[in-house]
Amino acid sequence: LNGASLPIVFATDFGPGTEWVGVCHAVMVRIAPQARIIDLTHTLPKFDARAAGLILRDVLPYAPRCAAALVVDPGVGTQRRAILVLTERGDLLAGPDNGLLPLAAEAIGGVAAARSIETASTSFTFHARDVFCPAAARLSTGTSFAAIGPDIAVSSLVRAAPLIADVREGPIECEVLDVDVFGNVRLSIRPDALQKAGLDGETLNVETSRGRSTAVRRDTFGALAQGEVGAIVDSFGWMTLCLNRASAADMLGLARGSRITLSRGGAVDL
Amino acid sequence: LNGASLPIVFATDFGPGTEWVGVCHAVMVRIAPQARIIDLTHTLPKFDARAAGLILRDVLPYAPRCAAALVVDPGVGTQRRAILVLTERGDLLAGPDNGLLPLAAEAIGGVAAARSIETASTSFTFHARDVFCPAAARLSTGTSFAAIGPDIAVSSLVRAAPLIADVREGPIECEVLDVDVFGNVRLSIRPDALQKAGLDGETLNVETSRGRSTAVRRDTFGALAQGEVGAIVDSFGWMTLCLNRASAADMLGLARGSRITLSRGGAVDL
Amino acid sequence: LNGASLPIVFATDFGPGTEWVGVCHAVMVRIAPQARIIDLTHTLPKFDARAAGLILRDVLPYAPRCAAALVVDPGVGTQRRAILVLTERGDLLAGPDNGLLPLAAEAIGGVAAARSIETASTSFTFHARDVFCPAAARLSTGTSFAAIGPDIAVSSLVRAAPLIADVREGPIECEVLDVDVFGNVRLSIRPDALQKAGLDGETLNVETSRGRSTAVRRDTFGALAQGEVGAIVDSFGWMTLCLNRASAADMLGLARGSRITLSRGGAVDL
Repeated sequence: LNGASLPIVFATDFGPGTEWVGVCHAVMVRIAPQARIIDLTHTLPKFDARAAGLILRDVLPYAPRCAAALVVDPGVGTQRRAILVLTERGDLLAGPDNGLLPLAAEAIGGVAAARSIETASTSFTFHARDVFCPAAARLSTGTSFAAIGPDIAVSSLVRAAPLIADVREGPIECEVLDVDVFGNVRLSIRPDALQKAGLDGETLNVETSRGRSTAVRRDTFGALAQGEVGAIVDSFGWMTLCLNRASAADMLGLARGSRITLSRGGAVDL
Repeated sequence: LNGASLPIVFATDFGPGTEWVGVCHAVMVRIAPQARIIDLTHTLPKFDARAAGLILRDVLPYAPRCAAALVVDPGVGTQRRAILVLTERGDLLAGPDNGLLPLAAEAIGGVAAARSIETASTSFTFHARDVFCPAAARLSTGTSFAAIGPDIAVSSLVRAAPLIADVREGPIECEVLDVDVFGNVRLSIRPDALQKAGLDGETLNVETSRGRSTAVRRDTFGALAQGEVGAIVDSFGWMTLCLNRASAADMLGLARGSRITLSRGGAVDL
Repeated sequence: LNGASLPIVFATDFGPGTEWVGVCHAVMVRIAPQARIIDLTHTLPKFDARAAGLILRDVLPYAPRCAAALVVDPGVGTQRRAILVLTERGDLLAGPDNGLLPLAAEAIGGVAAARSIETASTSFTFHARDVFCPAAARLSTGTSFAAIGPDIAVSSLVRAAPLIADVREGPIECEVLDVDVFGNVRLSIRPDALQKAGLDGETLNVETSRGRSTAVRRDTFGALAQGEVGAIVDSFGWMTLCLNRASAADMLGLARGSRITLSRGGAVDL
């Protein structure tokens, strides 16, 4: 098995347009002058492999089968391993062994096998440039999975903590997974959880550390009146709190990692 | 007529480096693995199809003839149509029917014909990924204009409100079209308006909601003394208020949509 | 000598994802439809050719031999020359004559020859679009170095001020070269300077305009306790002050251009 001619997917927390992203492109073009490189995102949550992995899990199914360098790596230079993961779909994902890759692989079949990436001398602080991007580029030019380094047990890979989403009949406690550039607040539950909990009415009570609000279930942003909080299903299938053309995160005082409780709405408003 | 082998131009308000931009790239590469994709901008004014369209109007003439996905789409998921516009130059522009595309097409010949984009099931909230980018990618692989969907009347397209620019002999009332990353303030008038209004002297009075300032006419940023407000013609032909190596927007308290009045300067300074 | 088929490297201070970056891409694709374009960075320090040149010096060695448009250009439209520089490695770098290009070329052999870029009419304010990117694109399609314009003396090129780094036995006065997106503070000295000054102990005193702190020498971010200031060698070989998963620049009140003094630490802590 190898990744010859695969496009290279590149995702980091380096920030868009930085020289860190650019120098990695430069390194990849030197190794693989013909490769297509897809910048999947460079705004992954800094230092947070779990939150980043959840985003990658949602977007990788839209990408073609690929070689990838996926990098959110606060432990760079420590004993954490540099790994290459083969997915059931046939993708080859290079990155740190900190929980990021198993999450990223989850919706494209999960992890089928893993290797440790062997490299000669390298910097202590910039493995995207020195380890992960070179590995992805070499794979795209035909280097085999096995040639990257020794086999490691899939069961030995670091795994991220599971989502907080306490779903049973009654109120749901969940977490904020992400806040997007429009201020939309992605929750750690999907619409079936609301049904399961008996919270499938037209309104929801939203309890945050700041207080209580009411959210109305809608299909689209545009169906919301000005200032009205909506609970919609976002384009990746998550329940999301939003406003029409304004920031729900600002209004509700929510950020990634915030805990909220959803309960049955409606009666309160009568 | 078709767009086979055309480069794909992609422009949004998603913010640079976000996974929203990345997932659209992934979708386009899957459909059109050989296509050149040009990221024209991902910092278009959020929620503001008119301001975004004005920017696209200025930059599209520099692009080669293209298939394009142009997306500023606060009405996504509502009844607003998804459309494909053919320009007189032969470009094929996919986007929402909210005024964006006719403005974008204005400087490359205007709209010659339009089609409604027919798609199977799609998300309510992410038509860039599910409708517009797939359409642009299919066009670049040879799908014909007619195959995209039924013809619609050009006269039925939504149009943006005209520019505010009250130009006659005497003071000019105009609006701020945009503030760039350097804090330069683009006005809704071109230099011929100043001539027409008899304001072609070396200085201008600039009246904002904050008060009155004086601007001097110059050719370049570098010709301005420190702290001096300049009125220059920017690289797209608009009158622009600026400072040398500092932000005129911050100094004058101006933002997109601000109204200002320009009148004859000079005498005041004698 | 020419640059036929070379990839084009593009670096600016325009901000990521702006239409300024995009319109330059559009112009280059029109001239050189087959060229690979590498966005090396679009977050170079605004208005600061010296700081930008120092960053480019560090990253260009990772790029393949290239045609390049390198643009930090506060003097656009003034008498400053538009130049093309040939490096000893064979790169062709187009940009303003303000000190940027000689610094950028320094680690890829330095400047071997220079030409003035001859262009017909152009804007006063946007030479990236009108002069530098067209030149780089034409070079990548085979236009020769000599055809760009008349030869100019290498000795006549504007040079940036040298680094501030007062290194002798005892305390070192140095400057902050850059603060990255994680808040890491890059200093104007490399590790050999500490040795030369006799400051190669396990701790350093860091004196800023805000006061005095202690930094510990470490190899990696991960080896730092929470809240502990580290002095590490960054991935480009510079001494850098950092925290583990937090911003040293914020904690120490440092920004690009700040002056600091390093002296022997350790005894203070006993």
